Amino acid sequence: MASRTRGGRTCSVAQALDVVGERWNLLILRDALLGSTRFDAFLNSLGIARNVLANRLNGLVRNGIFVRVPYQHRPLRHEYLLTERGRELTVVIVALMEWGDRHFVDGEPFRVAVHSACGGEVHSRLVCTGCGGPVAPADVTTRRND
Amino acid sequence: MASRTRGGRTCSVAQALDVVGERWNLLILRDALLGSTRFDAFLNSLGIARNVLANRLNGLVRNGIFVRVPYQHRPLRHEYLLTERGRELTVVIVALMEWGDRHFVDGEPFRVAVHSACGGEVHSRLVCTGCGGPVAPADVTTRRND
Repeated sequence: MASRTRGGRTCSVAQALDVVGERWNLLILRDALLGSTRFDAFLNSLGIARNVLANRLNGLVRNGIFVRVPYQHRPLRHEYLLTERGRELTVVIVALMEWGDRHFVDGEPFRVAVHSACGGEVHSRLVCTGCGGPVAPADVTTRRND
Repeated sequence: MASRTRGGRTCSVAQALDVVGERWNLLILRDALLGSTRFDAFLNSLGIARNVLANRLNGLVRNGIFVRVPYQHRPLRHEYLLTERGRELTVVIVALMEWGDRHFVDGEPFRVAVHSACGGEVHSRLVCTGCGGPVAPADVTTRRND
């Protein structure tokens, strides 16, 4: 697929978007990071059709974002727990939240990300492993890693 | 729309996704961050239909992600330049690239983000404004900002 390659090699952004680059998937991830684990919790929060939600959750399980584990046996009921791979997308969700807060919210943001160890606010940042400093978006370029 | 609200207030992630939460839009942003500005450059890179690309670019201009400026007058030709609002999404794209590299690429990543000031590699991070430390995804929770 042409959209997936640059210079004959597959682009990581495109591959990442194959797995999570869809509005519902990113909203499901948002809810999971807010603590939702059960089908009905996602359903109520998202206002999504049951079959669409079931498809999306199955896809996210197949791609290793969630594991599906029983929380009740009679009748059998499952919950969806984020894997480490899924949880690593926290920075994407936090960055989208901050960007949304900055551009679409008048006044204080509705919800903030918090460091569970100290209670401080968590933000997404670009950092440079060369000079160690924070990096402004305008100062980011890319190079091929040949 | 139910999917846009949590607790009666509009969620910033959902609002952000209304603007950029679509695979093509995020791939267009990726190309813009890699330096593409012209319609044909996006077209060739993405392998997208002309009308779909035109719709996506118009939407991104309408939402203040790009400005459309003439670069030639006879015949009239425009290019698409990222606004500051658009460029702020760099952290989202870098985070998706890193996640894709980590999970889908064997060996070295194809492309790395670079700090133009010093040439060092740029990475996305979660940082805590309370303790000043880096934050692991598993240590992020959220709270309502009441």
